[in-house]
Amino acid sequence: MSTSTPAQTDPAQQPGNHPAHEASPLSSQGVLIFLPMLYVGWADAVLTPSQAATIRQKIEAQSWLSPEERALLCQWVDPGNPPSVAQMKGWLSLIRRAAPNIPAGARNTLAELGIQVARAATGNAVDRCTTPAACQALDDIELALGLVGPEAIRSLLGEQRPTTPESTAPEHPSFDVGRMTDLLDGRHAALRQKVRLLLADPVFQYYEGTDVDGYREHIFHGCRVLARQGLGALSYPREYGGEGDLAGYISAMEVLSHHDLSLVIKFGVQFGLFGGSIAMLGTRRHHEKYLAQIASLELPGCFAMTELGHGSNVRDIQTQAVYDAGTGEFVIHTPSETARKEYIGNAAKHGQLATVFAQLEIDGEPYGVNAFLVPIRDREGATLPGVRIEDNGLKMGLNGVDNGRLWFDHVRIPRENMLNRFADVTPDGRYESSIASESRRFFTMLGTLVGGRIGIGLAALSAAKSGLTIAVRYATRRRQFGPVGAPETRLMDYQTHQRRLLPLLANAYALDFALKYLVERYETRSEDDAREVETLAAGLKAFSTWNTTHTIQVCREACGGQGYMAANRFAALKADTDVFTTFEGDNTVLMQLVAKGCLSEFQQQFHDINAYSLVKFIARRASLKIADLNPVTKRLTDPAHLLDSGFQLETLRHREEELLASVARRLKKRIDAGMDSYAAMIECQTHLMALGNAFVERVILEQFVLGVERSPDPELKAVLKKLCDLFALGRMEEHKGWYLEHGYMEGQKTKAIRRLVDQLCFELRTEALGLVDAFAIPDQALAAPIAL
Amino acid sequence: MSTSTPAQTDPAQQPGNHPAHEASPLSSQGVLIFLPMLYVGWADAVLTPSQAATIRQKIEAQSWLSPEERALLCQWVDPGNPPSVAQMKGWLSLIRRAAPNIPAGARNTLAELGIQVARAATGNAVDRCTTPAACQALDDIELALGLVGPEAIRSLLGEQRPTTPESTAPEHPSFDVGRMTDLLDGRHAALRQKVRLLLADPVFQYYEGTDVDGYREHIFHGCRVLARQGLGALSYPREYGGEGDLAGYISAMEVLSHHDLSLVIKFGVQFGLFGGSIAMLGTRRHHEKYLAQIASLELPGCFAMTELGHGSNVRDIQTQAVYDAGTGEFVIHTPSETARKEYIGNAAKHGQLATVFAQLEIDGEPYGVNAFLVPIRDREGATLPGVRIEDNGLKMGLNGVDNGRLWFDHVRIPRENMLNRFADVTPDGRYESSIASESRRFFTMLGTLVGGRIGIGLAALSAAKSGLTIAVRYATRRRQFGPVGAPETRLMDYQTHQRRLLPLLANAYALDFALKYLVERYETRSEDDAREVETLAAGLKAFSTWNTTHTIQVCREACGGQGYMAANRFAALKADTDVFTTFEGDNTVLMQLVAKGCLSEFQQQFHDINAYSLVKFIARRASLKIADLNPVTKRLTDPAHLLDSGFQLETLRHREEELLASVARRLKKRIDAGMDSYAAMIECQTHLMALGNAFVERVILEQFVLGVERSPDPELKAVLKKLCDLFALGRMEEHKGWYLEHGYMEGQKTKAIRRLVDQLCFELRTEALGLVDAFAIPDQALAAPIAL
Repeated sequence: MSTSTPAQTDPAQQPGNHPAHEASPLSSQGVLIFLPMLYVGWADAVLTPSQAATIRQKIEAQSWLSPEERALLCQWVDPGNPPSVAQMKGWLSLIRRAAPNIPAGARNTLAELGIQVARAATGNAVDRCTTPAACQALDDIELALGLVGPEAIRSLLGEQRPTTPESTAPEHPSFDVGRMTDLLDGRHAALRQKVRLLLADPVFQYYEGTDVDGYREHIFHGCRVLARQGLGALSYPREYGGEGDLAGYISAMEVLSHHDLSLVIKFGVQFGLFGGSIAMLGTRRHHEKYLAQIASLELPGCFAMTELGHGSNVRDIQTQAVYDAGTGEFVIHTPSETARKEYIGNAAKHGQLATVFAQLEIDGEPYGVNAFLVPIRDREGATLPGVRIEDNGLKMGLNGVDNGRLWFDHVRIPRENMLNRFADVTPDGRYESSIASESRRFFTMLGTLVGGRIGIGLAALSAAKSGLTIAVRYATRRRQFGPVGAPETRLMDYQTHQRRLLPLLANAYALDFALKYLVERYETRSEDDAREVETLAAGLKAFSTWNTTHTIQVCREACGGQGYMAANRFAALKADTDVFTTFEGDNTVLMQLVAKGCLSEFQQQFHDINAYSLVKFIARRASLKIADLNPVTKRLTDPAHLLDSGFQLETLRHREEELLASVARRLKKRIDAGMDSYAAMIECQTHLMALGNAFVERVILEQFVLGVERSPDPELKAVLKKLCDLFALGRMEEHKGWYLEHGYMEGQKTKAIRRLVDQLCFELRTEALGLVDAFAIPDQALAAPIAL
Repeated sequence: MSTSTPAQTDPAQQPGNHPAHEASPLSSQGVLIFLPMLYVGWADAVLTPSQAATIRQKIEAQSWLSPEERALLCQWVDPGNPPSVAQMKGWLSLIRRAAPNIPAGARNTLAELGIQVARAATGNAVDRCTTPAACQALDDIELALGLVGPEAIRSLLGEQRPTTPESTAPEHPSFDVGRMTDLLDGRHAALRQKVRLLLADPVFQYYEGTDVDGYREHIFHGCRVLARQGLGALSYPREYGGEGDLAGYISAMEVLSHHDLSLVIKFGVQFGLFGGSIAMLGTRRHHEKYLAQIASLELPGCFAMTELGHGSNVRDIQTQAVYDAGTGEFVIHTPSETARKEYIGNAAKHGQLATVFAQLEIDGEPYGVNAFLVPIRDREGATLPGVRIEDNGLKMGLNGVDNGRLWFDHVRIPRENMLNRFADVTPDGRYESSIASESRRFFTMLGTLVGGRIGIGLAALSAAKSGLTIAVRYATRRRQFGPVGAPETRLMDYQTHQRRLLPLLANAYALDFALKYLVERYETRSEDDAREVETLAAGLKAFSTWNTTHTIQVCREACGGQGYMAANRFAALKADTDVFTTFEGDNTVLMQLVAKGCLSEFQQQFHDINAYSLVKFIARRASLKIADLNPVTKRLTDPAHLLDSGFQLETLRHREEELLASVARRLKKRIDAGMDSYAAMIECQTHLMALGNAFVERVILEQFVLGVERSPDPELKAVLKKLCDLFALGRMEEHKGWYLEHGYMEGQKTKAIRRLVDQLCFELRTEALGLVDAFAIPDQALAAPIAL
């Protein structure tokens, strides 16, 4: 009733249906004193028989009440005979009429209130109940009703919920938002700003229709605009119109990912996967012929690796490329239905040339998976002979991208169409390669996919940031429920809401530092650390995309029904990013590869599930000695200890090392007993997943800690440190079962960590708005009405 | 290379580009013996310098090798000078040519293999290396390469991966699937079967277009068909064309939910929410006038409770209903923008009459939230004067339902349009109610929503079952990766896949028993247990809908790219069910209500966040004594103990009781220190959530255990017991951090639980197909090509 107008009218003066007929008993002081208690007792629910009996007994014992008063009061606490609505209204009016005259100090108990009501209603001094015995009786009755706390009083007095204050501006963040944006933008700040401005152009308005064809053309047009701005060519060599700036290309993708994700995926397919395959697997002849046309989108193309039957297991794809030395051609063929190329972006509609991965065969000898350029459409868009194309049809999301299927029926291409950077076939049919090992050749070729994985990890992060920006802004505006007599509570002031959103905000910042580190490592990688960079890319791709699926889901739920409206963007964010956990490497497969990378110290072709030589590392890893924790440290709970980065890093590293040794021991035991390493791996899969996760979390924390240390501005550093603490302690809380199980922590420590996470969430609630504003997502891209 | 054809040709006889030029050194026995090791060493990756040095040192020391042989071998292990592809091919050909003659017993090491290769290539007996010293040297070199296990050999010998066996039928389940369906169907088997048959009718084909208008009409038409079949009226009294069968109505909804969820939500809005509000809040005059027309869908209507500004907090809605005694009318009015009715199903297009919840005011006095019937469109569909309707537009999902917004501008309705079962206004403007307490009246009215919550819980479960059916069937067919020389592995045979899907299958069975128990309790509820039934409904709705969001996500990811194709249903399942966690009560709010229900022993109006009298229960709950566990039991790990239902129930109950006492202590401490109970609740929110969760999990396990016990068929009982164990142990594993933190278990026990969960998942992998088949989802409704 808190929003309703309190009854200020005198019931005695009311006409008609109002409780004037009860004026007579209500003029009795002894009765009036009990009114607040009676009202509250009935208002909440039905008095239970035992409550009623207790109260009646107390009343009977009050000698200062007249027999009539006692009779009336007892009648009014009879559970079988509750008061009418009109009676209740009458009591309430009397109580509220007295309210303005009741001093603040006399509003603590219903008994005190009763005395004031009696005084106001009768105009007399109330003295009958001031004896200690009477006071005790009143208190006892109040206790029997279980009415405690000032809220009952405030509610009774009809304190109105004020309308939400005019200014709903939340507290200012403790730091300069612009400087935080600069810090996040890093060395590509100008490029990022250029892309942001571009996204504000009307050409990039979201497509409003539900028809797929119009949507695809809209997205294709958007890609052309981006190409014209030179964004597609950023990573290509300067001689072909590019800037040789791989990190710049990835930064552009990252910012574009705040907009429609169909656009960035179409962009990535054309310039990254298709163009990238030619840039990285092809040689000068391919670069000269194609790169400039690809960069300008004159030549739209496909990256045709995945088949219906083989997605993760690329090595077993079935498309054939048979060399015909007689004509100097390769014959590209789809030998079975499961060998059809599947989910190929740009295939259903726009692609003219495709990089096709196929099993090379020369004179009946197999030479493994190689890549070939196969024209699929002419310049007018007509499908070429021998090629069959089918539309993949409606997808969960990304419907602005034209995914399709490809079949080849003995399609002949010239020998020069083989992408021959790592291997080539001579005119007379000799296979030549600078890489002797077929396995190594295969994985070197796959290594060119790493850039795509990094791009997806960042695209996922951008989508998570969009979701967080919407949800945090909504949470600082939306109010629901509240204490009596106060404005409704802002969602962000609820502990549950803080707990839902703020650890995810910490994740977003953590991943920002970690993914930028990955881009740097990728840019400067050499032969020596290529395996480690691939492991990092695989692990961070999996972590980031799973984090995004989770973040967007939580943000949607945190926005309630508004979150469900398509206008507020979660529909698209969810549907579009959902496949991120699958494409560019299925996350579950990737996390196992990460674990194998850890086991083999990044020296081997970690992709190869049957790697011959993984086994030799296992024995060494199995004998790893993990340092035990000091028994005192297990129980240390003071914040200075828990917030120490050294402790945090040590704790995450310990989990990684322990899991590494434990997985190695498990594998070794099985292999020593004669089990195939493949079968042994399957039996240890959940442990491998845990190891992969531990590795990634440790890497992320390391980079976040470094990022905080390097932060030049003390205000930024302070808030980043809190986010970093939340990330670190959040990881420990998530894995507290493991830490307790392994005796690394005791219960008092994990409880202290939980309390500290609560505390950090509470402290960050006033920073959250500034922290999402620092993502600097253009309004036109964010678009959600609840967040603008 | 496992799918390629092994080279059976003799390189010496090959023309042109083949390695005939290497025939000469390869005729030397001493070299041939090392070929398998050399090939494998290079095939995997580059030999590291230290590996190469070790091997060279060993070779140098072999006096049985000629100086030429030693020189050649040392040259071949030079990391700076790797063999060419042609050389590698030549080595491989020689090795494989020898393969058919190598006895199974001599395939264990590369050294053994080398001897056989030498023998086959030269036709001579090999004796030079059979001295113990030579054997030792060969073994040492093999060890230095780290090549262990029979896979290396199999791979080397080119064992081909067989094409997947003709029959891919997985093992039969251990139980009769039809009997399991009967058990799940229970007493409404005939009705369920009728609905299944109905869904197979062509009228219920999925709508293929992307246009919203056509989709809405398609769904509306489907509702008419359901109405004609009498399904809409099932719960209404017989005199109005129904069957008075509430459980039947809910069962029908449950089966319908395997189909397009827009259909079931439109169905639920019309017959459950709108019709139900009239049936439950109205009286004879409303029933006679409307119910038959509602049941036949002649009168489509809305349930207009939620407003833009108030969704969860219904008590503070702002729409006004002012009684005008002069004309005997209520004036329905929307006083502000936030007071507009929002997300109202049936409003944008089809609704003609709406049950509108509004703040009743008589003579300036507020009488709280009451429900009124307000016509919004005429029979021709034209909007009535004073009413404004807007379309909510595109939503994430459920776009077959026409959600809209409603504004009322002083719309006058007759006094008789008040739904007056619990309160009425006399012609002269007196408010009358059989329920004195306004709070109680409000919650009694809201209690009529409980049926909707139960329906949503079951609809969510059906959607989860659809997702599981698709994912499990796909997992038993799809193969990817595999050991050398064997078919690729079925996804269901991967531990990670079992771990992802099977606990969710156990959840689905668990919820099936729990939700049926809830329906039974709801059907037979009385005044005494109404609060407890509401608590159960709130908790199970939240648990089931969150479980569904999670289940469908995991199932989608488990189907990879196929899962992303709209044809395979996950797109719709995800998008449509996403709002289930929000509507009919936001899950986070509901879980806190559940906790308050636990705190107040279900005696109070648990909805009321400010309930006066919750406080009195807190002290009693805070003093709860929880029995400590026997120290031996904390460490017990044998399966007989862990699989004992008594232990499982005891463990889940312990968590619930401990959390209950702990929450009460935390609240009491704060309230005793003078904090408002509202503020205290906010500070304890995460604990309240945990308590709500513990309550629900305990209830579900109780019902599952009972369901297993009552199962008449020993085969069904056996597999259900495994599912029940998986559910119970899965809950303990999920909360192991809590159990360890509170000293209820020790590490060895939680580890044993993890192993047992692994084991149960492994055992259930062959039952999974039968378990999803038992859901008996019609193919036409399931529709996903990958699952048919």
